Amino acid sequence: MTTTTEQLEQLTQAAAAAAPVWRRSDAATRASWLRAAADALDAHGEELVAIAHEETRLAEARLTGEVGRTTGQLRLFASALEEGSYLELTVDDADASATPPRPELRRMLTGVGPVAVFSASNFPFAFSVAGGDTASALAAGNPVIVKAHSGHPRLSRRTAEIMAQALEGAGAPRGSLALIEGREAGNALVQHPVIQAAGFTGSVSGGRALFDLASGRPDPIPFYGELGSVNPVVITPAAAGARGEELAKGLVGSFTLGVGQFCTKPGVVFVPEGAGFEDLVARFAVDAEGGPLLTERITDAFPLGVAHLEADPSVTVVAEGRPTDGAQPVVLATDAAAVVDRPDTLLEECFGPVTVLVRYSSPDQLLAALRAVPGSLTGTLHSEPGDDVADVLEVLERRVGRVLFAGWPTGVAVTWSQHHGGPWPATTSLHTSVGATAIRRFLRPVVFQDAPAELLPAVLRDDALASLPHRRNGVLRVP
Amino acid sequence: MTTTTEQLEQLTQAAAAAAPVWRRSDAATRASWLRAAADALDAHGEELVAIAHEETRLAEARLTGEVGRTTGQLRLFASALEEGSYLELTVDDADASATPPRPELRRMLTGVGPVAVFSASNFPFAFSVAGGDTASALAAGNPVIVKAHSGHPRLSRRTAEIMAQALEGAGAPRGSLALIEGREAGNALVQHPVIQAAGFTGSVSGGRALFDLASGRPDPIPFYGELGSVNPVVITPAAAGARGEELAKGLVGSFTLGVGQFCTKPGVVFVPEGAGFEDLVARFAVDAEGGPLLTERITDAFPLGVAHLEADPSVTVVAEGRPTDGAQPVVLATDAAAVVDRPDTLLEECFGPVTVLVRYSSPDQLLAALRAVPGSLTGTLHSEPGDDVADVLEVLERRVGRVLFAGWPTGVAVTWSQHHGGPWPATTSLHTSVGATAIRRFLRPVVFQDAPAELLPAVLRDDALASLPHRRNGVLRVP
Repeated sequence: MTTTTEQLEQLTQAAAAAAPVWRRSDAATRASWLRAAADALDAHGEELVAIAHEETRLAEARLTGEVGRTTGQLRLFASALEEGSYLELTVDDADASATPPRPELRRMLTGVGPVAVFSASNFPFAFSVAGGDTASALAAGNPVIVKAHSGHPRLSRRTAEIMAQALEGAGAPRGSLALIEGREAGNALVQHPVIQAAGFTGSVSGGRALFDLASGRPDPIPFYGELGSVNPVVITPAAAGARGEELAKGLVGSFTLGVGQFCTKPGVVFVPEGAGFEDLVARFAVDAEGGPLLTERITDAFPLGVAHLEADPSVTVVAEGRPTDGAQPVVLATDAAAVVDRPDTLLEECFGPVTVLVRYSSPDQLLAALRAVPGSLTGTLHSEPGDDVADVLEVLERRVGRVLFAGWPTGVAVTWSQHHGGPWPATTSLHTSVGATAIRRFLRPVVFQDAPAELLPAVLRDDALASLPHRRNGVLRVP
Repeated sequence: MTTTTEQLEQLTQAAAAAAPVWRRSDAATRASWLRAAADALDAHGEELVAIAHEETRLAEARLTGEVGRTTGQLRLFASALEEGSYLELTVDDADASATPPRPELRRMLTGVGPVAVFSASNFPFAFSVAGGDTASALAAGNPVIVKAHSGHPRLSRRTAEIMAQALEGAGAPRGSLALIEGREAGNALVQHPVIQAAGFTGSVSGGRALFDLASGRPDPIPFYGELGSVNPVVITPAAAGARGEELAKGLVGSFTLGVGQFCTKPGVVFVPEGAGFEDLVARFAVDAEGGPLLTERITDAFPLGVAHLEADPSVTVVAEGRPTDGAQPVVLATDAAAVVDRPDTLLEECFGPVTVLVRYSSPDQLLAALRAVPGSLTGTLHSEPGDDVADVLEVLERRVGRVLFAGWPTGVAVTWSQHHGGPWPATTSLHTSVGATAIRRFLRPVVFQDAPAELLPAVLRDDALASLPHRRNGVLRVP
C-alpha cells in the first residue's frame, strides 16, 4: 500500500488547510481533542494489541502496557496545554523613558505548521502513529502526517483510522492526522513544502538519510531524530564488590528486555577487571530468554552485528542465553584498551539481546574508554558512597542526556522532567522526544509589538495572562 | 591575518579545555564574568568607536549607541542567569505506586560546549565579536570562538582582546573567547569536532554555505543563522487616508536608517492603489540621505541589486534621494500581480537604501502578494480601527517572527520578550538571536535519575531549588 505522489499531495493539502485551525485553537479545545484520541485508543485497546502482537511478535502484556503509556502520553500533553507554561508568554511593557524608547512586546509560542512523523518498529504504539512525536506535534497545534513503519502496517492503519476519527469526532478539522506508507513517500514527505518540521525514531542510517533531506531542502526544516545509542554503564569496583550479584542480574534483565530492542538498552558496560563480575553475569545470562525479533531486517542484522563484534581479536564470549527460535542473548567481553583503539567496531550499537562488557583496571583506563563512547540517550553509574566519581560523571554528563544512579536505563518515565535525547548520534538536536518539553520542538516564537488588544491572540491579552503562567517585565508570575 | 590550521587547532583545544569550567561555573560567577566584559567594553568605548567608524564609516553617534546596546545585552544575560529560569529546573519525585514505579528525575539545561559565532558587517558591536550570539553562548556556559567579519578586522581584534582580558581578569579560564579570521578558517571552524553549535548573522548565500557544512558534519551540530529578510509592511487604505503623511515620512526614515543596512529594513511595502501614498513617499524620499556602505562588496552589490529590480517591466522609480558619494536612496514601485508572478525577482532582499512599494487594489490581491513574501524577521501592519485585518494578520503571523502595529521594524529592543527570528530564510531555526531567550540555543537538557544528593549539580539539590524558579511534580514554583 505505497502512498502515491497524488495521494501525498492530497494529504499535505488537507494538512495545510487544517493547520490554521489547529494553530488558532485554544488550549482547552486542543486538550479535549487529545483526550478524545486517547479515549478512543483505550476503547480499542484489545483490538489494537491483537494486531500489534501478530505483526511485531511482542508479548501482549507488554503491548497492553504500551497502549496505556501511549494514551497517558496524550493526556500528559493535554494537561500541559491547560497548565499553559508551554506558551512561554512574555510581556515587556512599553517604556518611553528608555533610550531608545521601548515599545510594548508580547511574545508567545505558536504551532510551526504541519509536521511529519517517522515511526519506529520497536514501540508500535508509544513511538509510532499515536506516539510521542505525534502527541507533542498535535499538542503544539499542528496537523501531523505519519510515515508508517513497515514492521506493523495494519496496526498503523487501524491506529490512524481510530485516531483521525476521534479527532474529527471531537471537532478537529479534516486533515488533522494522516498516514502514508513506503520509503519513497516518506522521502517526499520530509521534502514537501507544506511540512515544517519532522520527528523520527529509528536507525542511524535511516535517520541520517532523512536528516540530510530535511537539511538539504531549499528551505531547511528542523529534523528531530532519535537515532542510535549504546547507553554506557559504569560499575565501580566497590559497587561490584558490594552488589555484584544484584547488578549482574539487573543488567541481564535490562539488556534482554524486549529482546534487546529498546533504544535505551545497556549496550556497553564498564566493569572492573578481576572483580568476578563477568562470572556473575554469565551465571544469570545462561538462563536469559531471547525470542523473535521485530522484523526480518532486524532478524537478519542481529547475528551479523554479533559476528562483527566477535571478529575483533579482543572479544570473548562470556555467556549465551537459552537457545530459542529467535535471537539468543549473548554477553561479550573486551577490554578498555581495545575500545580506545577500535571504537568504531566495539562501540557501535547492535540492536538485539547483546551487551559488551569492557574490563578496566584503572580509573584512567576507564575514563579513556568512556570518552570514546558515542553520544547516547543514557549513562548509568553504579558506585558506592565514598567512590571518587567526579571525573566519570563529568564524562557522562557530556556524552548522554540521562544519567542514572540506580536501576537500569530501559524504562523511560513519561513525565514533565524526562529527557530522552543526547549528543549525536543519540539525537539530532538539543531537545527531547519524551516528556512534556517535547512540545517545544514543534513551536516557534512570535512577538507582537504595540498591538491593539483586540488584534492580539487571546492568550496574550491582559485578562488571559492573569490566569496563565507568564513573565512580565522580567518577572515570572504563576497564577 | 588569516588564521592558520595550526592556530585554529590551538584555539579549539583551548576552548575545549575551558568548556568544563564554563559549564560547571555557577550563575553568579558567570554573571560576574559577563559584567566584567561589559564594563571593560564600556571603558574602552571611545577607542572602539573610533576604530569602528574608520572601518565601517557608520556615524559615531550610532556606534556609541551600539556599544551601549551591546554591553546592555551582556548585562541582560547576567540578570537572566541570576533569575534562573533559563535552567528550566524540573523535578519529578519518585512514585513507587505508579505503574511502572516512577524513579526520581531532576532535569536542568546545561552548556552545549564550545560555540562558533560568525559575526555580521552591519552591527560591528551588537552582532559581532561581543554581540548577542557571543553573549548568549557565554551566558549558557560555553567558550566562544568568533569568526571576525572582514569588514572590521581591527575592531574585531581589539574587541576580542579587551573582552578576553576582562573575562580572564574576572576569573574565567584561558580559552574563553578567541577570534579567527579568514573564510577558510571559518569553514574549518564550523566543521571542527570541538565546536558544538554555531550562531551566524549575514547573507543568505554565506549562511546557507555554513549551514550546509554544519549539517553535513559526521556529527551534525545546530546552526542558528539569521540570513535574509524583506520585512513586509502593509498599509491599509484607511491608514493611508488617515495618516498618509506620517506613514510616508516614517517609512523613508526607516528604510534609509543606517543607509538601509539593517536586517529589519522594510524592503517591501504594500500600499493601496490610487491613495496618493506614492506621492507622499516621493516627497520625503527626495530629501533622504544616503551615504557610504559598509564594505566594498556591499557597495558593489547595491547598484546591481537595484538594477535587477528596475529591469523588471513592472517596476518604476518613485523617487531618488539626495545624490551622495555613497549609495543614493531609491524608492521603486510595482504591483501585486507582478509580485505574485515573479516573487524571486521582486521579493529578494536588496541590502542598502532601497524599498519597493507594491500597489494593491483589493484585499484578495493584497493577500495573494503577501503570501508570496519569503519568511521574514518582521511584518508591519498599519491599519485603522474598523479595518478587517484578520486575514492579513493570519498571513503575517505565519510568515514573520515579529508583528508590528505601530512604528517601523528597524530598532530591535533587547528585552526578555524580544523575538528576532522567522521562517526561512529569516532564520534557520525556531529560536531567536536577540533577547533573553536566545540563551536556549546553546543549552541542552540533562536529567539525573535517582541521584544521591551529593552527586547532583548544586542547582538541582533541594536547598538550591528553594530559591530558584522550578517545576516540581508538574507545578511551576517561583521563589
